[in-house]
Order: sequence, then C-alpha cells, then structure tokens
Amino acid sequence: MSVPATTVVPPLTDELDIVIPTIRNLDFLEQWRPFFQPYHLIIVQDGDPTKTIKVPEGFDYELYNRNDINRILGPKASCISFKDSACRCFGFLVSKKKYIFTIDDDCFVAKDPSGQEINALAQHIQNLLTPSTPFFFNTLYDPYREGADFVRGYPFSLREGVTTAISHGLWLNIPDYDAPTQLVKPLERNSRYVDAVLTIPKGTLFPMCGMNLGFHRELIGPAMYFGLMGDGQPIGRYDDMWAGWCAKVICDHLGLGVKTGLPYIWHSKASNPFVNLKKEYKGIYWQEEIIPFFQSVALPKECTTPQKCYVELSKLVKEKLAPVDPYFEKLAGEMVTWIDAWNELNPSSNGAEVVKKVEVAPKKK
Amino acid sequence: MSVPATTVVPPLTDELDIVIPTIRNLDFLEQWRPFFQPYHLIIVQDGDPTKTIKVPEGFDYELYNRNDINRILGPKASCISFKDSACRCFGFLVSKKKYIFTIDDDCFVAKDPSGQEINALAQHIQNLLTPSTPFFFNTLYDPYREGADFVRGYPFSLREGVTTAISHGLWLNIPDYDAPTQLVKPLERNSRYVDAVLTIPKGTLFPMCGMNLGFHRELIGPAMYFGLMGDGQPIGRYDDMWAGWCAKVICDHLGLGVKTGLPYIWHSKASNPFVNLKKEYKGIYWQEEIIPFFQSVALPKECTTPQKCYVELSKLVKEKLAPVDPYFEKLAGEMVTWIDAWNELNPSSNGAEVVKKVEVAPKKK
Repeated sequence: MSVPATTVVPPLTDELDIVIPTIRNLDFLEQWRPFFQPYHLIIVQDGDPTKTIKVPEGFDYELYNRNDINRILGPKASCISFKDSACRCFGFLVSKKKYIFTIDDDCFVAKDPSGQEINALAQHIQNLLTPSTPFFFNTLYDPYREGADFVRGYPFSLREGVTTAISHGLWLNIPDYDAPTQLVKPLERNSRYVDAVLTIPKGTLFPMCGMNLGFHRELIGPAMYFGLMGDGQPIGRYDDMWAGWCAKVICDHLGLGVKTGLPYIWHSKASNPFVNLKKEYKGIYWQEEIIPFFQSVALPKECTTPQKCYVELSKLVKEKLAPVDPYFEKLAGEMVTWIDAWNELNPSSNGAEVVKKVEVAPKKK
Repeated sequence: MSVPATTVVPPLTDELDIVIPTIRNLDFLEQWRPFFQPYHLIIVQDGDPTKTIKVPEGFDYELYNRNDINRILGPKASCISFKDSACRCFGFLVSKKKYIFTIDDDCFVAKDPSGQEINALAQHIQNLLTPSTPFFFNTLYDPYREGADFVRGYPFSLREGVTTAISHGLWLNIPDYDAPTQLVKPLERNSRYVDAVLTIPKGTLFPMCGMNLGFHRELIGPAMYFGLMGDGQPIGRYDDMWAGWCAKVICDHLGLGVKTGLPYIWHSKASNPFVNLKKEYKGIYWQEEIIPFFQSVALPKECTTPQKCYVELSKLVKEKLAPVDPYFEKLAGEMVTWIDAWNELNPSSNGAEVVKKVEVAPKKK
C-alpha cells in the first residue's frame, strides 16, 4: 500500500504535529498520504483499548489508547474524556511541536472549483504564519493574501496585525449542523466554495468546529481543552465548542488572532441525528446561558499566559456556570487538572509570557 | 438608443431609489440599463451646475445640481459638500423610498465566475430583505442564503437575527485602495470572486465604501451623511468612511445589522493616486484618532431613533474630535444641520422609533 515518494508533497514546516482522535477507516490515511506522510501523527484512540488501529506503512506516528493516557497522566487522566473524540486534546498535551493540525477520520481531501485537490495543511500553515486583524474589519478579507491588501480607510497603525493563534477550516459536502438542523434538512449539502480567509473580530464568539482545525500550540494550546464529554458525562458534541469559547476569549485577552474560512475538507458522512440529539440536548439549552457568560468574561491584566488565563476562566466557570448545572463545577475542576497536566508535560512552557504585538486600539497622541 | 423592453429585468421592489453622485460617462447607464431602468434614479451633479448631464432615453430620473440644492435646502445647504461625490447624500435626503442603492459612475456590471452578468441590485435587495446576525459569528457565512444555515453551536435564541440596515458590496478589477497603497501597488487588481455575504459583528468597525452600497433609508438614512468634503474642505475621500463609522455605531446601538460581501461590481479605473494623496493625507493621520473615538462611543438608551443617535453623536464629535482639528467642530455643526434638513424633508420619519427585534444577548432564564 505504500505510495511512491514522488507523490508526497514536501513538508512546509517541521514544527507541526497532526492529531487524530481515532481512525475507523483506513482509506482516511491513504487519501491524505501525499499531504500527511511528511508529518508526525499523534493518534488518540477514543474507544476500547483492546482494539488495535492499523496504521498503514510509511507514516511516522504515535498511538495512545486509554491505558496509555491513564499510565502517563495518573490521577490527572480524569480530565481526558473517554469514548468520545474529545480525547483528542490528550494529543495536544503530549505533542512537542509549535503547531497542531487536528482532523476527524471522516474528513477527506476536498477539491477546489478548478478540480485541484486541496492541501488543507498548507493552507492552515499559511493562515497561522500570517498575521490576523481582529481590531478592524477588512472588507477584502485576509489582507496578507496574494492579490489582496488593506482597503482605503483601514488604519495604518493596525496593519501590522497580530500573531495568529487559530486557523479554523470549513467543510464541503456534509455541513457541521446540530441535530435539530440535521433532522430538518437531511439532504442539505454544502457545495459553496467560498475563496476567503478572514479574522473573527475581537469580542465576537464563534462556533469552533474541531473537524478541520489548526492552532499555535505554544500560544493557545493550554486553552484547547476539549472538556468532559462522552462516557459518563451528560453531554456530547460540545467539546470543540467549549474549546472555541474558551480559546476565543483568551485570544482576545492576549491580543492573538483567530482566522476562519479556507481550507475546506470533504466531510464524507453525517453522524446519526438521533444519537446527536441525545448528546446535544442539554448543550442546546445550556449554551443559551454559557454564551452570555463568555461574552461577559473579563480577565485580569495579570493573566499574561494562556495557562494563567485558563485557570482564571475555570474560577469564573465555577462561580457563574455551576448554578446552571453541577456538571460545570466538575468541569471547572478538570480545567485546573488539565492545566496541571499541561504544565507537567510541558515544563518549559509554564508561565511563558505571550507578548502582545499590537495594542487593542491605536494609541492616542 | 432605447433598448427593447425584453432585456430589462423586472423590478424586485418599488421601494428603492438609485442615487448616483454624477455621471461623466454615458456608457455607465447604458450598461446598467437592463437592471436600472425599472427603478427611479436620483442624480446629484457634483460639479459645475451650468454643465448638463445627458441621461439616455427610457430612464425615470430626477437630476439635482448645486443650484437646486441651494434652492431646496436654503441655508441648510451648507451641510452638502460641493464639487465632491459626497454630495450624493442629498439624494438620500430627497428620496421618498424605503431603500437606497448608490453607485459610482465608474462602476460597471461585473461577471460571476460562470460568466453570468451580476445583477448587483438584486443581491443588495436580497441582503437587505434577509436578517443579519451581529451577535455571534456563523462560520458558513449568511445563514439565510439558499444551501446554508446556522452551524452546530450557534445559539438558537439568536437565529431570528435582526433587521439588516446596510448592504456593502465589493469591487472586482480596481480595488478600493488608499493613495499610499495605490502608489505602492499600481498594478494590483482584484480578481478574487468571494461567493459570500456576512454580517459584520456588533462592536466591529469597517471601512464602508460608497461605490456600491445599499441601505434601508428609513432605518439608517439619517446616519448616512457623507460629511464635508471637496471644495473648501481640508480632506476628501473620507465621505463614505465617515458615514460608515457613524452608521455602524448607530446600527450597533439600535440593534440593526450590516452585511458585506456580494454583490460585486466592476470598478473600471483607478483614480489618480497623487490627487488622492492630497485629498487623503489629513484623513490618514486623523483616522488614527477618529477610530478609537468611534470604538469608544456609547450612546444613551434614550436614543431610540437614528436622528436622536446622530444628534447625540454630533455632540460627542464636537467634544472629543474638535481638539484634533477645528474641522470637526464645523463638521459636528453640519451634522446637526443635516438632521434638521432630514426632518424637514422627511417629516413623517421624525422621531420614528426603531424597534429592536432581538436583544443584544440571549435572555437569562
């Protein structure tokens, strides 16, 4: 099954790991081989540890199952979800690289309107290596892209941009809908290729999907905790949303950027809407309180690292969301455990200050 | 020169006027004939009133020159710019329609990637007649568009959206760059057709370009004042920017939406960058103070109409921006004159309350 070396696209960086929550479909890696083979894969098996995931020849990978997680984290393993793709964040923890790309195993290589296969990884790397513009909207989208720039009226003091921490990619074919929308629109497919990348403005929350996601592990990794989902938990399918809400308020606080848009992947099949409804239904009404909570979060100035921000956020979650449901008290506790685990496995990152490159607004004379 | 009736696209609404600041090129109307002929045109001649603009047969139009403006507004005519396309806002004042589409005479019909001519007006009307989503970002762009919806994690309480007040269209070919960018990138052309419409989030300012712009005249018209530019004024090319900053903070306050993206027009030629630099240079450094000012504007609750908001804003401009340059004191005064003129010519709109359809954030239990 090995593919001739010539078909493999040379790596764009040696500072990126690919994290995959599980692989149920071997075609997945075969299809991505030309793009993924030069990178290191971290596979976090979400189900039964006695089952073996067969990784095709030629890939450089490490594979973790629940036994490995328990062995490595000891009592701190309680913060990692079981039998749920939320377990992927364990891969973020054990990576030693600067950047992460994470993708689901039902996501395949998409084609652009010219029929060309899309190298999703290359686009994520480009998104992460060019700045973001969270303080003012540019109507021609990403100003750092070839053939684009800042339009008339864009303040010159903001054109340096800020470091990009998150690159959120999209999906052709099956859109990422919630269970009620899946039930109402079973046949809807996303066939619209929108040729744009844009910065989500400061102060604006977004629904971050974990299917096709790149991020700067050093700068925002500690906020990319996928929560407690799946086995023994009252909700599912809010793992990436939780990480997105937390990461966005922390990016806003630290002066980091979040981009969304390109690249597209091909999302092959819709998950079962009835199963999804069962997982989601508490989240659907909880989010009506969670989102105003995140919209109102203000972190103190002393929080200059993602770790400090995250611990502070855990206190606010405990205080403000525990009244919604006891689940949030438990979650707040595991948020702290997660940071303890992060610092243990990433000792050099502990306390690293994130430098704000650009002020929130242009300075007064 | 009359075109057979069959080529004319039937009007989509009888509640829209097209406002054009001047017409130096008769091809302009001929090219737009299939789309514009069913609508009423308001042409505001920006230069010498003794020159006559020849409008081709078949168009329903009214034409105003400076003498007309002086006659109709009397002493209040001081608020309307002379020898500058900023005079177009006089057309907003005298229209009796619910919606306005305004376009420059160097903007022609663009083609979409399939080679089809784009009916820009139809897209603006669609943008204006469907809601906006300023309180949370939807990663699949406009959720009201065919084939799209709200993605997983989008709060259900916010899916009703809010009334759209502004539809900001874009430009293929010559991008809307400032003079420094024009000078640095004389050959840059915009050839990227981004097939998206999106809401600019609440709290985020954007550079609003007047070349290709639709808006709800009743809801936001009083904020669409294009300021004092051109003859006798220290700056130019900030008319639409000024209107955009004012209109955006007022839309945010009143719970109205602003969309940008489609439709594209074909911007045929770049204006002279040297002339532009002379017009812009004060604006380029003033905007470094103006934008933080607008970012910090908080209007009181009592401001429930665009008129009340605008008068309140004029007070803040006088207080906070007059120290930057005496020009802003004069501008603040003319902002009030503009509202006086608006109320005089639109007596029924005076004091009309804008109903907020959706709360700023989901309601607590």
